[in-house]
Amino acid sequence: MSRIDGRTAEELRPVTIERGWSKHAEGSVLVSFGDTKVLCTASLTEGVPRWRKGSGEGWITAEYAMLPRATNTRGDRESVRGKIGGRTHEISRLIGRSLRAVVDFKALGENTIVLDCDVLQADGGTRTAAITGAYVALADAIGWAQERKLIKPKAQPLTGTVAAVSVGIVDGVPLLDLRYEEDVRAETDMNVVCTGDGRFVEVQGTAEGEPFAREELNGLLDLAVKGCAQLDGAQRSALGQ
Amino acid sequence: MSRIDGRTAEELRPVTIERGWSKHAEGSVLVSFGDTKVLCTASLTEGVPRWRKGSGEGWITAEYAMLPRATNTRGDRESVRGKIGGRTHEISRLIGRSLRAVVDFKALGENTIVLDCDVLQADGGTRTAAITGAYVALADAIGWAQERKLIKPKAQPLTGTVAAVSVGIVDGVPLLDLRYEEDVRAETDMNVVCTGDGRFVEVQGTAEGEPFAREELNGLLDLAVKGCAQLDGAQRSALGQ
Amino acid sequence: MSRIDGRTAEELRPVTIERGWSKHAEGSVLVSFGDTKVLCTASLTEGVPRWRKGSGEGWITAEYAMLPRATNTRGDRESVRGKIGGRTHEISRLIGRSLRAVVDFKALGENTIVLDCDVLQADGGTRTAAITGAYVALADAIGWAQERKLIKPKAQPLTGTVAAVSVGIVDGVPLLDLRYEEDVRAETDMNVVCTGDGRFVEVQGTAEGEPFAREELNGLLDLAVKGCAQLDGAQRSALGQ
Amino acid sequence: MSRIDGRTAEELRPVTIERGWSKHAEGSVLVSFGDTKVLCTASLTEGVPRWRKGSGEGWITAEYAMLPRATNTRGDRESVRGKIGGRTHEISRLIGRSLRAVVDFKALGENTIVLDCDVLQADGGTRTAAITGAYVALADAIGWAQERKLIKPKAQPLTGTVAAVSVGIVDGVPLLDLRYEEDVRAETDMNVVCTGDGRFVEVQGTAEGEPFAREELNGLLDLAVKGCAQLDGAQRSALGQ
Amino acid sequence: MSRIDGRTAEELRPVTIERGWSKHAEGSVLVSFGDTKVLCTASLTEGVPRWRKGSGEGWITAEYAMLPRATNTRGDRESVRGKIGGRTHEISRLIGRSLRAVVDFKALGENTIVLDCDVLQADGGTRTAAITGAYVALADAIGWAQERKLIKPKAQPLTGTVAAVSVGIVDGVPLLDLRYEEDVRAETDMNVVCTGDGRFVEVQGTAEGEPFAREELNGLLDLAVKGCAQLDGAQRSALGQ
Amino acid sequence: MSRIDGRTAEELRPVTIERGWSKHAEGSVLVSFGDTKVLCTASLTEGVPRWRKGSGEGWITAEYAMLPRATNTRGDRESVRGKIGGRTHEISRLIGRSLRAVVDFKALGENTIVLDCDVLQADGGTRTAAITGAYVALADAIGWAQERKLIKPKAQPLTGTVAAVSVGIVDGVPLLDLRYEEDVRAETDMNVVCTGDGRFVEVQGTAEGEPFAREELNGLLDLAVKGCAQLDGAQRSALGQ
Repeated sequence: MSRIDGRTAEELRPVTIERGWSKHAEGSVLVSFGDTKVLCTASLTEGVPRWRKGSGEGWITAEYAMLPRATNTRGDRESVRGKIGGRTHEISRLIGRSLRAVVDFKALGENTIVLDCDVLQADGGTRTAAITGAYVALADAIGWAQERKLIKPKAQPLTGTVAAVSVGIVDGVPLLDLRYEEDVRAETDMNVVCTGDGRFVEVQGTAEGEPFAREELNGLLDLAVKGCAQLDGAQRSALGQ
Repeated sequence: MSRIDGRTAEELRPVTIERGWSKHAEGSVLVSFGDTKVLCTASLTEGVPRWRKGSGEGWITAEYAMLPRATNTRGDRESVRGKIGGRTHEISRLIGRSLRAVVDFKALGENTIVLDCDVLQADGGTRTAAITGAYVALADAIGWAQERKLIKPKAQPLTGTVAAVSVGIVDGVPLLDLRYEEDVRAETDMNVVCTGDGRFVEVQGTAEGEPFAREELNGLLDLAVKGCAQLDGAQRSALGQ
Repeated sequence: MSRIDGRTAEELRPVTIERGWSKHAEGSVLVSFGDTKVLCTASLTEGVPRWRKGSGEGWITAEYAMLPRATNTRGDRESVRGKIGGRTHEISRLIGRSLRAVVDFKALGENTIVLDCDVLQADGGTRTAAITGAYVALADAIGWAQERKLIKPKAQPLTGTVAAVSVGIVDGVPLLDLRYEEDVRAETDMNVVCTGDGRFVEVQGTAEGEPFAREELNGLLDLAVKGCAQLDGAQRSALGQ
Repeated sequence: MSRIDGRTAEELRPVTIERGWSKHAEGSVLVSFGDTKVLCTASLTEGVPRWRKGSGEGWITAEYAMLPRATNTRGDRESVRGKIGGRTHEISRLIGRSLRAVVDFKALGENTIVLDCDVLQADGGTRTAAITGAYVALADAIGWAQERKLIKPKAQPLTGTVAAVSVGIVDGVPLLDLRYEEDVRAETDMNVVCTGDGRFVEVQGTAEGEPFAREELNGLLDLAVKGCAQLDGAQRSALGQ
Repeated sequence: MSRIDGRTAEELRPVTIERGWSKHAEGSVLVSFGDTKVLCTASLTEGVPRWRKGSGEGWITAEYAMLPRATNTRGDRESVRGKIGGRTHEISRLIGRSLRAVVDFKALGENTIVLDCDVLQADGGTRTAAITGAYVALADAIGWAQERKLIKPKAQPLTGTVAAVSVGIVDGVPLLDLRYEEDVRAETDMNVVCTGDGRFVEVQGTAEGEPFAREELNGLLDLAVKGCAQLDGAQRSALGQ
Repeated sequence: MSRIDGRTAEELRPVTIERGWSKHAEGSVLVSFGDTKVLCTASLTEGVPRWRKGSGEGWITAEYAMLPRATNTRGDRESVRGKIGGRTHEISRLIGRSLRAVVDFKALGENTIVLDCDVLQADGGTRTAAITGAYVALADAIGWAQERKLIKPKAQPLTGTVAAVSVGIVDGVPLLDLRYEEDVRAETDMNVVCTGDGRFVEVQGTAEGEPFAREELNGLLDLAVKGCAQLDGAQRSALGQ
């Protein structure tokens, strides 16, 4: 059975990771998972929030947002509504946690990095593309800071790599990297964040229709681990490693 | 190895589910998981939000909040700050999705039920206690409406039962139903929402420290499934089933 | 003429004051005036707001709120609406002023106490129950701090006691401690805050229908003074004095 | 003992009521109590809020605000802070209740009148000046509507007159119509709203220092009733009655 | 062709500038351009915002607002809506920039002046009246500070004078100082801010209907320069220069 | 004298207009003026805001925003701050007015077009690039709607073309199309919006330092008219006209 875009069930969409997209940010990546395009910038500033001052440790946080017409019908701007929606909050927190999972804050020193992930065009999987791209932007910002000795050149602030992918069950079949049309039809929807060594940082599975059984969960996890491994390769290749 | 309160790793805290706590709400439950106490009310009104009118289907939504001094140090009120925090948003959405997973909206008819879960005292596991209690409040509100023929007396709006529990790895040991002190020390933290027949509605696992391996994930899921089955029993017993 | 619940015009509803309701707060009380139940917590922290630093004096403030389904029909959460309503503001300020009236800020030292009064169930008189309960929570928090020498053990931060009651004229008859059904029918509605020695801290009378005459005002004040004296007894009894 | 401006304890400040101050509003008054100047406009529109439609009854509401430099030190604008303070809320509600107390909503018909009371310069007693001025603006707006037959020319929407004054105890002496300097020194502060026939619409007394005794309350009420009677005269004279 | 109020095309409305309107503010002016009345207060405080501390330079900022019934139909309060509208923001910024253009911040020293321009009654040209009046209030506040040696008595914080006027094309004819009725009919609308020596601080021209040609722009500028020169005279005369 | 990037004073930066950038929007353009990059999308929906219903006329509005790291130092998100800044408001309004100036709303029919201009990277002239790009996105959205007969195929909703450019005086020399570094040094700064036939839609000139003289204004206008004519060519070429 072939998917709307001809992929097999276990196939990612074409992934591109374009580094140095912005001339201002310390790290910046335009990542695309098929038609999903997310601009990830990493902004590094010396110093940390007040509650962390004097600890010798750095901090990393993330903000996710969608342009109003990234989607098929225009959404109101959260700035105009005057408040951030629940979905935006939830994804921003997920991205922040995922990236912090591979950072040694002592090695980062008292520096703060903000990862901004702005969805320019959405076609499913925006949060997983954001995490995958943000990792590369983060690596570039750290490299930038090490060149300028804001971070010790021999320090290893990154303790691993991190990437994310969505998986889901559509018409009873587990699929990797859902497009929007697949996502709305999925009975179960899962986002998985893995490190490069195949361990888990986040596992978030949701029954959209019927509850799912343990074996279905297992099948989805298998698929996600394979997808993350491929994304890890794409990240390494983009970083020239 | 025994836990701070003498429980074994696989043991729940004492669970109480007190129905009919409020004289106003159509369904209301004061649920406690040890020292965690959540007041869950189910407010049923005829009619549905505009986007659902004329569909013949009902709607269920949830709001979670903590009293300012539910915790060890007082938190600012979100009403005073003028906005809802990310954590509150995230948990409100989780509760809503979890309950909707066991509802047949056709059978509910064009009625709306709002589940308010207000944490009166917190000691870890507030969201899982909220889901577990909200299910009972929901069942009571549906019963109330069936008595008054707002819902057809022979309809079955509930397609199953739902309960939730937290699990986590502390000092390398998987533990069921974490108290606050355990939660802050957990390397991995997972909230699992199950139906009474042992399937999954939500699985949310997060590495707080080291990423976690597949076998650790499996161990946590085993524990959670057992815990949810016990909570299912407590719900049935409270409902006199 | 007997009232809906069989009380005489001059009778309070059953009053209960349950101390130590919360394991976290320095002082906490669940107070009930009949079906009106308010959870009052007193949170004591060392230090004072910036404008009071170095004065040697403490500070006390209060916040009042209702759970969304404390009332017969569910109200929107103020946190969700993003702003606090006028009624909430007004009552919070009233509670704060009432408690500050019996505090010697020099004796309190540079400590801040926040009184949170959250209405769990409402049936008229929520603000008067809140003041009456908050006084006991405040006394407990001060006791807690004196045991820990955060406040000098021999200091007398409380210069008196304070309690509050509502009175009103229904069908031409002055009644003590109105239930909700009586309150909505009252021609005149008055909230009175008294000290234990029978003096006034606040008198707030409002004509809901016809303006009221001086003799009616006098009758209501007589009734309120009697009610406050009884509440003073309930407070002393709860505090074991 | 003479007051800072030479008045006796029982004397009002010079009161002026300038009608027709604004060319746009249906009724408008610049009222001054000494240096306190409040611009009161009454805006009448046909129709009522949704919850009152079809009732045949009108509605009256009020909004109070201060210009940022109405006071001795500049206050932040509430529009810039993005929220209304508790004091503003409280006074707006008081003004609305006070005016509604003398209105027959059936006679008003389905019309809405908004009373805007903007303090241009403050020197104590801004809420009482606002109520006193708003009554005259309201009377003018009703007259305007009766000339245009928006309200039946023979209807009597006003069932009485209403005025307000502050009283307080300063250095043990009850004083009428406090200036700002007196207000900050007052041990007890009371705002009283009376109808022209000497009955009460609102009585709000607050102990700023010591609680006050019944006889002190009585003395203040006597003073307030006298002051309101004089203001009633000033209103009638402004209205050419 | 004569205008609705009988003026010629090149004629200003009667302009009055009443100094010392407020007893609290360091400088205050009630300015009127015909029926447009704006209360301008200048509030001077020692010190500057954080980003300017230690620079030896002062700061000037402005806030513009309209009372709700300054206009023909009542507008909602921005404080009640909880946010400032685009027009308010735009005009506040324009006033601030215009006044800063004639200030030597070194000579002002580390003092901050806030110019509040509150429109009490509107009939077109509120922003130009505000700028014209605010200049005089600013001059008075500086004089006040020089008398008290908060600013060096021989310093010259004002490097020039500034005034503003609106011009527009109505029925093909360029008109000076538009009233509201003219403004809404104007094909092109321009606000011009000039210094006393006839140079420009701001030029803001907008085609409301057809785009405008270079010669039309030139005609409007000629008219505006003449109008500003007259306003400069009115300011000098008000200041007794 | 040559500029930082080697341009002459009268030279635009390289301009690119990439149509069809987004797969979702009815019209979309990525416009660049040198390093300034703005994504302009035109979202067309049938129907108009309530106040325009039944008029037979359409409506056009615009929203401008910057990504947080579009600039050299990261700016806070307006959605996170909970309010829109004055600059954003001002530019959104300018873009909306500029585009409406070339639209025949009768010919547009009861359709609404929202122009979203999101700055992905900023280097001066973001508002002028936004207007220039938004015109092309608007033309595409209208073409899209005419193909689908949402707008009459023979209607001419566009009555002309519109483009915008910044000009300024730097070190006494009038320059066309300022980069950020030039903009911050400019003594006078002007944004000019022209139609394709060389007339003006908006002229906004601001003295950043010294006030500017009439001849300087004239020189800047000459330069702006030339720049707009070139941008008009770039727009026509992008549209294949």
